[in-house]
Amino acid sequence: MDIQKIIAKKRDRQELSKEEIEYFITNYTNGNIPDYQAAALTMAIYLNGMTEEETTNLTLTMAHSGDILDLSEFGTVVDKHSTGGIGDKVTLILAPIIASLGIPVAKMSGRGLGYTGGTIDKLEAIPGYRTNIKIEEFKENVGKIGISLMGQTLNLAPADKKLYALRDTIAATESIPLISSSIMSKKIAAGANKIVLDVTCGSGAFMKDLNQAIQLAKTMKKIGELAQKETVCVVTSMEEPLGKAVGNALEVIEAIQALKGNMTEDVQEVVLTLGAYMMKLADKGKDIEGNKEKMLEQIQSGEALKKLKELIQIQGGDVSYVENIELLPKAKYVMPVLATKCGYVKTLDAKSIGEISMHLGAGRMKKEDSIDPAVGIVLEKKIGDYVKENEILAYVHTNNEEKGQEAVKQLLDCYQIVEEKVEKRSCILKVI
Amino acid sequence: MDIQKIIAKKRDRQELSKEEIEYFITNYTNGNIPDYQAAALTMAIYLNGMTEEETTNLTLTMAHSGDILDLSEFGTVVDKHSTGGIGDKVTLILAPIIASLGIPVAKMSGRGLGYTGGTIDKLEAIPGYRTNIKIEEFKENVGKIGISLMGQTLNLAPADKKLYALRDTIAATESIPLISSSIMSKKIAAGANKIVLDVTCGSGAFMKDLNQAIQLAKTMKKIGELAQKETVCVVTSMEEPLGKAVGNALEVIEAIQALKGNMTEDVQEVVLTLGAYMMKLADKGKDIEGNKEKMLEQIQSGEALKKLKELIQIQGGDVSYVENIELLPKAKYVMPVLATKCGYVKTLDAKSIGEISMHLGAGRMKKEDSIDPAVGIVLEKKIGDYVKENEILAYVHTNNEEKGQEAVKQLLDCYQIVEEKVEKRSCILKVI
Repeated sequence: MDIQKIIAKKRDRQELSKEEIEYFITNYTNGNIPDYQAAALTMAIYLNGMTEEETTNLTLTMAHSGDILDLSEFGTVVDKHSTGGIGDKVTLILAPIIASLGIPVAKMSGRGLGYTGGTIDKLEAIPGYRTNIKIEEFKENVGKIGISLMGQTLNLAPADKKLYALRDTIAATESIPLISSSIMSKKIAAGANKIVLDVTCGSGAFMKDLNQAIQLAKTMKKIGELAQKETVCVVTSMEEPLGKAVGNALEVIEAIQALKGNMTEDVQEVVLTLGAYMMKLADKGKDIEGNKEKMLEQIQSGEALKKLKELIQIQGGDVSYVENIELLPKAKYVMPVLATKCGYVKTLDAKSIGEISMHLGAGRMKKEDSIDPAVGIVLEKKIGDYVKENEILAYVHTNNEEKGQEAVKQLLDCYQIVEEKVEKRSCILKVI
Repeated sequence: MDIQKIIAKKRDRQELSKEEIEYFITNYTNGNIPDYQAAALTMAIYLNGMTEEETTNLTLTMAHSGDILDLSEFGTVVDKHSTGGIGDKVTLILAPIIASLGIPVAKMSGRGLGYTGGTIDKLEAIPGYRTNIKIEEFKENVGKIGISLMGQTLNLAPADKKLYALRDTIAATESIPLISSSIMSKKIAAGANKIVLDVTCGSGAFMKDLNQAIQLAKTMKKIGELAQKETVCVVTSMEEPLGKAVGNALEVIEAIQALKGNMTEDVQEVVLTLGAYMMKLADKGKDIEGNKEKMLEQIQSGEALKKLKELIQIQGGDVSYVENIELLPKAKYVMPVLATKCGYVKTLDAKSIGEISMHLGAGRMKKEDSIDPAVGIVLEKKIGDYVKENEILAYVHTNNEEKGQEAVKQLLDCYQIVEEKVEKRSCILKVI
């Protein structure tokens, strides 16, 4: 086989065979195919697309390019993944609820790159919590208490890692076959049998419009089907951040409060919808509304919060932080953002809020950057809320006074306030 | 400026500004932009195209990426260039005719890569001919006798050299903006004021069909116009090889015979047409047919041959080889190819003949390969000729008996012979 002929085929809008895709991925990963040939092929894929079969073959080849986590001893494991958003603390709330229902949760999460940290960064806001445990301990924990959340220590889908880094340098990120194969290859390598995907859509997400998001969701569902990993995609809105907090410890606090029964409407909607489909895939209930009720019961009875404490304890974290959230890392300054006029919040740009929080130190610009767990933003008013002049719209949590003042100004610009009433809309745009 | 944004623009079918093209070319040539980003941009250009203005800016930036040969002391210098063909000995015949008419010929030629050598390789079949002279001597020769032909010693258009090598590895050669900017940048760097281009078309050429060739011709003409280098393109057929000989010394012999008045019809048609437009651009005659007559007179009077001898003499070559072509390098074996049936030659595939001649040793597969000047093919029958059974179709000149026998068999397959009469067609398809 010959990489030039493979590039020429995709350049001429022809379909690549399974063998050709395997040849490319294998030889690119082991360094036999140089970056410039991979870049040309990637741009041709970006511009000419891929069929569902090609995308599935790309996904499976990348999934099998490194370690595969074997979770078969736990029966059906349903994984949950989000394509990324601002203020997304869903895993921290959802995982304990699901585990408390007797559905095994064995999740390897990445660190965040961008606006805020990933789930692993957030968990590390709890002193003592070990994200870097051995696979044996990880599985032991799942066996004992039905849940473990750890960092990515295995060499999962190294081909995807290499191709993703390349795409990032050649303006070839926003391609549906490339995004979907990247996500699905990691999920398959991480051992899931069934997958629930939160496909975010809006200014704070990869997919800016609904049609694109639906297209991405359909592609991933189809890959799941062809790869025999049943997949449900929930398309959710990311026009404004999810919930109130954007930042690491701040989101942990919001998650703990949620498990104590104090959840904002949008977070509840997303958590319950994703969870209800996870239950369905795990054969724990076909009725979505019924499943949501059961999940709420796990919160009301305290079982979900108990499961979170068990998880923190077994992985070495200090459980007293759950009881007393005041102990979590706190920023030096908490600065209110005051409304300059009265009216209804019409827009609250998620992307800008993500950027402000990153500049405060909540996220990483480069892989090597460290994260400040204490800093971030808490939104007191969201789209559809009525606000009076001088009422608090949001708080900036910062360890740097100057940066904080800058953030206050910028946050004020993120709020568009109008006279006419604005309806609150559902976060759930579509289930595929 | 930022290469990722430039790639994204072209990816999204937007037009690149002059500054963006300059940023790319400058930083790619000096190594600041890596091959993989250049590869992604090149594939995006291949697939999304370039406007005439973009192509012109790319051409001029590449032309100015290295040395520019200054020929202003000679007034108007008309350069001639071919996009490449099999059996193309046109420069060897045309240059002396043009010089004998008092039009300066100052031509830097490349070595060949592919089926046969370039003009420089062919001239080196004449013992003593120095292709590697200094620029001062080159100009002195043009001043003294009105002509010099030398190898490419200056660092002409290094950006083109780098991009061309990259294109070759990523299946991005056959793109009209990329081919035309590559050719025109080298011509402009080589100091031409006006340019006549032989745009070949057919199996033995880059452009396989007439529409593509016309498109390439129009693009190069437009670049010439925008770069203030008046350009005429003659689209010629390369379905069958040009003339009789394919090979280095064999083509020199055919060229000398042509200057002695013995030219095949197709060679004469191409030489006279290209030359007549060169005369027109040099203000030596507006009437194309009249110009052709004047060129024929230069052959009949012996002035053109005399000019070739002057050229060979001034550059150190042995002129006796022109008087006595039998002295030129000869192959050990000359093997006839005999017709297996009678009829008219319908097709005579140029590309296959090029490949056969390359395998005999007349061309290079890699830059480092050496060329055997003696070997090649002489075609005795061409498209439209009638042939009897056992009549000689062609001769294979070889220094390796086994390779020669293989070539004889393959050559026979290149001839398609049919019963019905086949019309000879003109080589000149269009003048643009």
